[in-house]
Amino acid sequence: MLKLFNLEEEGMELLLKELKDRAEDTNEQIIGTVSKVLRDVSLRGDSALREYTEKFDKVKLENFQVTKEEIEECFNKVNKVDKEFINNLKEAKDNIEFYHKAQVKNGFILNKERGVFLGQRVLPLETVGVYVPGGTAAYPSSVLMNVIPAKVAGVEEIIMVTPPDKDGGINPYIGVAAKISGIDKIYKVGGAQAIGALAYGTETIKKVDKIVGPGNIFVATAKKLVFGKVDIDMIAGPSEILIIADENADASYVAADLMSQAEHDVLASSILVTTSEKLYKEVEKEIEKQIQTLERKEIIKESLINHGKVIICNSIDECIEISNMVAPEHLELMVANSMELLGKVKHAGSVFLGYNTAEPIGDYFGGTNHVLPTSGTAKFFSALSVDSFVKKSSFLYYSEEAIKADGEKIINIANKEGLTAHANSIKVRLK
Amino acid sequence: MLKLFNLEEEGMELLLKELKDRAEDTNEQIIGTVSKVLRDVSLRGDSALREYTEKFDKVKLENFQVTKEEIEECFNKVNKVDKEFINNLKEAKDNIEFYHKAQVKNGFILNKERGVFLGQRVLPLETVGVYVPGGTAAYPSSVLMNVIPAKVAGVEEIIMVTPPDKDGGINPYIGVAAKISGIDKIYKVGGAQAIGALAYGTETIKKVDKIVGPGNIFVATAKKLVFGKVDIDMIAGPSEILIIADENADASYVAADLMSQAEHDVLASSILVTTSEKLYKEVEKEIEKQIQTLERKEIIKESLINHGKVIICNSIDECIEISNMVAPEHLELMVANSMELLGKVKHAGSVFLGYNTAEPIGDYFGGTNHVLPTSGTAKFFSALSVDSFVKKSSFLYYSEEAIKADGEKIINIANKEGLTAHANSIKVRLK
Repeated sequence: MLKLFNLEEEGMELLLKELKDRAEDTNEQIIGTVSKVLRDVSLRGDSALREYTEKFDKVKLENFQVTKEEIEECFNKVNKVDKEFINNLKEAKDNIEFYHKAQVKNGFILNKERGVFLGQRVLPLETVGVYVPGGTAAYPSSVLMNVIPAKVAGVEEIIMVTPPDKDGGINPYIGVAAKISGIDKIYKVGGAQAIGALAYGTETIKKVDKIVGPGNIFVATAKKLVFGKVDIDMIAGPSEILIIADENADASYVAADLMSQAEHDVLASSILVTTSEKLYKEVEKEIEKQIQTLERKEIIKESLINHGKVIICNSIDECIEISNMVAPEHLELMVANSMELLGKVKHAGSVFLGYNTAEPIGDYFGGTNHVLPTSGTAKFFSALSVDSFVKKSSFLYYSEEAIKADGEKIINIANKEGLTAHANSIKVRLK
Repeated sequence: MLKLFNLEEEGMELLLKELKDRAEDTNEQIIGTVSKVLRDVSLRGDSALREYTEKFDKVKLENFQVTKEEIEECFNKVNKVDKEFINNLKEAKDNIEFYHKAQVKNGFILNKERGVFLGQRVLPLETVGVYVPGGTAAYPSSVLMNVIPAKVAGVEEIIMVTPPDKDGGINPYIGVAAKISGIDKIYKVGGAQAIGALAYGTETIKKVDKIVGPGNIFVATAKKLVFGKVDIDMIAGPSEILIIADENADASYVAADLMSQAEHDVLASSILVTTSEKLYKEVEKEIEKQIQTLERKEIIKESLINHGKVIICNSIDECIEISNMVAPEHLELMVANSMELLGKVKHAGSVFLGYNTAEPIGDYFGGTNHVLPTSGTAKFFSALSVDSFVKKSSFLYYSEEAIKADGEKIINIANKEGLTAHANSIKVRLK
């Protein structure tokens, strides 16, 4: 099912182009629709939210806020049928927290001669909004991955928005994840109107400093349009995995991991880069076998046929070179000496080491974040992290003695730039 | 010249709105022009660059790259007339480097039970492009502030683009700053076409991972449009300063610092927040006196009249509260106990402590970065820093023992999300 990609004949450029071309482009019509929704919400607040919720979610809501009782109800409902799930999610939360706590950075202060000191403070954002899709794409793991780094960063208030279902309720698993991850407030509002509410504030919903979380093309477009008024996380494109496997890799593992990526989306891309043609052939067989048991086999099939690829290399070093050009969101190193090779990996959102570290461990449980840069942007973007929820503020102190010592130098540079009022602010202090 | 702003009567909302409304909006015509330039450069590379350079910069260039000899020429020219300037800029570079080196963060690794380990690597971007405006807005300090953090981060290659003058040369002070800060390559190309070249690459100019540096509305719009293909720094709006001053502040210092901000731009905003009405009156007199000596007095006057403000408060704490709502780019704390008060400052790009730390010290010499978040975005954005030039990549290792211990938990969560291929990738490893 995977297309054998002949690198020498077809060239790396083509491979990279195919990967990048998967991204869904916002078109003018969507921008128009979304702009109108945003404008309406900024002007009319809650009443616009009510209208759009009725129009898009087919439900009339008077109050958007999810009550404590509703959350407890979600929790009890899930607890009754699936107590284990709650325990699993709590353990996942502990693992994610453990990893993200190691990301916390302190500020610093540096002392210099003449009493000069300077430094940087690291300050949490005050308010963060998390968008959580509803319906069939309701992923409790996504709630954890977006909320925990913000909590660890020290964000004062975390607001969740999620579309109501047709009865005006929310997905109970989302409610459980919200409770476990410690969200402060939840509102039943989705789509571009929810992004507008978080960006501008309404009578009910507070304006936030940053909006994170996945969403459909309308949500993504709305986030782009409000960027600058608030901060946003990155706009994720279709997902991808690149697996580097040596001849000792188990074909059934490789096949399963490629398909776990493919099931996300027909646009997802699963790439195997290996030194073993034998492995490739076995992987193909394993795919044919395993796919029969999988619920989303149609999506997997379409994804693998359109975007799945195999590249056969002469050495593992060559495999890594290719991976560095792709800069994949997820990289599995199914090789004997995975940790020793990690140093050669220059660009990858998240790396899964060895034969046993299936990528889904990282999606749910291992502790690293699953919100990752896609489509080659791992060259310059990073996973969602504690850093995504802080800002840094610098400070500088100059003593009278110091300004007397450095004043003329500063005046000289300011004058060269033609900024005499800058020079003047030093001059008045030298008198 | 400063407008007395009555907070009780006029309200904080109005003040914030006025500040935000200064930002120049990209209009559709500009987007159209810039899109065309970008498309042309992406399709036709160098030949498009030549055409646009002839059209916009009025100069015909065969080769864009600035030669080593040209840089030496810049250096010798400046060295002859102004050796002191070169020494001053070198000292500024040392100070900026000293501060930014303290920003360098290491990765980490965490070991867990059953041989599990996970962590984060911090990796420098490979290639960065720095845009440097030409003409009268040529600021050597800006070269240092954009390049040094990238160098400290370990960026392999830093490419500078700057528009040629009418004789096909570059500003000699920019050449000096480029040499001092250690830029690898300089190209004589400006405007949206330069951004296009950095984002897509041409025959001559290499595609970069990130573009930083200030520019006019065409450059800023081009940066916005290529964002995602490459990373960009923030789009800076008009500059602002907020000065908190107690009754012991020297009115001549306050006046000079307000004007140093105002001279940047008629849209710059200079705000004095003080407990002393007496100080305010003295500041007004000092402005009238000092402005006469300043080259850019017309700009200063227009800026102060349109955007200058004074707010009189009952206490320094109240002053800080107001400042926290404004979230100014630059904050001067001209109070007796400035460092003790710093902890109360929640949002500010850069803070200048005490009576002597004039903001221009930070613009040129103190060591902190002068590329700062404007128009209230200090609530969620940070100064340009070493962090701006790295990306973080996570890694995770699970042993066979660990996957056996945690497998069922992960399968359970995956199944709840309806992702059975995710569950399957764990299942195959439990067999």
